[in-house]
This record gives sequence, C-alpha cells and structure tokens, in this order.
Amino acid sequence: MHERTQVTMTPDQLFIATAISSWRQVVTRVGALCLGLNEEQLLGEVAPEKNRILYLWGHLTAIHDAMFSVLRLGERLHPELDAIFITQPDRSTPLPTSAQIAKCWEGVHTELLSRFMTLSPNEWLERHGNVSAEEFERNPTRHRLAVLLNRTNHAWYHLGQMMLAKPKAP
Amino acid sequence: MHERTQVTMTPDQLFIATAISSWRQVVTRVGALCLGLNEEQLLGEVAPEKNRILYLWGHLTAIHDAMFSVLRLGERLHPELDAIFITQPDRSTPLPTSAQIAKCWEGVHTELLSRFMTLSPNEWLERHGNVSAEEFERNPTRHRLAVLLNRTNHAWYHLGQMMLAKPKAP
Repeated sequence: MHERTQVTMTPDQLFIATAISSWRQVVTRVGALCLGLNEEQLLGEVAPEKNRILYLWGHLTAIHDAMFSVLRLGERLHPELDAIFITQPDRSTPLPTSAQIAKCWEGVHTELLSRFMTLSPNEWLERHGNVSAEEFERNPTRHRLAVLLNRTNHAWYHLGQMMLAKPKAP
Repeated sequence: MHERTQVTMTPDQLFIATAISSWRQVVTRVGALCLGLNEEQLLGEVAPEKNRILYLWGHLTAIHDAMFSVLRLGERLHPELDAIFITQPDRSTPLPTSAQIAKCWEGVHTELLSRFMTLSPNEWLERHGNVSAEEFERNPTRHRLAVLLNRTNHAWYHLGQMMLAKPKAP
C-alpha cells in the first residue's frame, strides 16, 4: 500500500516524503535502541567521560520537542526537558527515569509525525519559526524543510555515538 | 550571491538545494576535522576498541566514491578503497597514509559535487543504480535523492563518533 501511494505522488510530494522517511528512520532506530536497553545499560557512557546514552536520549527528545515551535506547528509538549537536556550537560542534574523519557519520546514523535502530515510541500518551504519574515525574504533557505533535515542529521550524529555503547549481542 | 540565486529557484530546485546543502555541510565538517588532526590523533580510537578516526575517514571516502556508481554518475575514482575500508574492519590491513586519504577525499567530493550540479530535480527522482527498472516501477522511492539523504545520514552518524575522539582545544 505504501508503494502504491508513492506512485501517485507529485515530484514535490516525493521530495518531502523522502525527507520524512529519513527522519522516521532515525527516530525508529534511536527508539528501538533505547527501548531495548535496561536502566544500567542506558547509564553507560558512549565513550570514557562522554555523555551517557540516557542523557542523549533525553537530549534528542528535548530537541525534537522544540521542533513544534521551530516548525510553527503549535505548542511543544515538554518544555521542561530543556533545563535538563539542553542547557545543562550530562551529570549536572538528576535525570528522569528511562520510563519517563520513553513516554515523552513516544508522545513527541507520534504527535510530530501527525503534524508533519498536515503540511503541503509548499508549506515545508515556508519560513521556520526562528527566522523573521524580513530575514526569510533575504534568505529563503531558512524554511521548515531545512529544519527537518538538520534535526534528522543531528539525530544520526548522536545515534552513531549511542551505538558505540550498545552492548554486544550475547 | 548565493541568496539571490535561491530566490529565483522553483520549489523543486529548492528541495534539491536543501538536500545538497545538508550533504555539503557534513562533508565540510568531516574534512575540517580530519585535515586538522595530525597522524597520531588520526590513529586515536573513537571509543575503546572501536574504529580509529583514520579508518572512518577512509570508510566515508570509499562509501562516497561508490556514489558515482550508485547515482549512475559515471566511473568511480577509487574502487581500491573498498577492500581496505568497506569489506574489512579496522586493523585488518595497513591503512594508507592520511595524506593519501586526504587526496582521495578532496578528489571524490569535488567531482561528486560537480556532477550533482548536472542533475535536474526530476533526475534526482530517477532510479538509483542498485535497483532495476522493474523494481523501481514497483517502488519509486528508490531514487537518487534517497541515496543522497542516506549517505548524508551515514556521514553524520560517523562524524558523531569521530567527534568523541577529537582532542580538546588547549
């Protein structure tokens, strides 16, 4: 069914579907990795003295939650995560439990994806929320799609790190 | 000038320009990181018993070189890299020097980018080289643009790892 849907897409729709597919892929991989680890494994560092997996999971949750605002898709769900996972480095404040992060992770991504689906290809090329209309007129590359690709890249960057700490299968 | 060029772009062209910009960004970052490290630093592991930076640099060079074939953009420049950096894990064969990898890295990316510029938006939606025309008819998401995003993601994944081994600025 997925394939048949694609056949009827316009080029514009195909471009956007490709970008969203790339986003879904990293979200699925991060989720599968983290949900498959126990609390002790989640507290493993990705490398000596570097971030713990649980911190990176919360960090990605917070950054993605902020996408509601950056993409002008409504109120974000968990602004309280920023103080723990964005403005402070790992080990500066106690982290929420993995169950709490998992719940935020699921909620944020389900809701984000459903709002992505409401945007037309042209709306993806509208300005993002961190740029004024005047700035956007001077630099039309600062659109929503650029944010989506940027956050996708950011998630792959951290997934690469998290995978280093993944315990080997027995 | 860059900005003015963008203004006159069609939505299709903007989509592609955004994807290429995302690709350039990670290529620039990997290049700047690796070219800024000395031989000893390049031989540092990204985490205990994990790949060395130099290996990952060569790995990305080989994967990107293979894009000439996968994107059907002509002959690849360095097929000899595959045996060292794709089919074999790190530490199984002696690595080329960093100067040799740097030369391949520069050559591959200069040439790739110049060929990217020859493709129209619709050509980016044509099948990639690892899929037959029949398969592509059944699954039109297997186009060149999907390869570009996939390789961009792959590079961000490894950049995240390489950054862990980057020596702190004094």
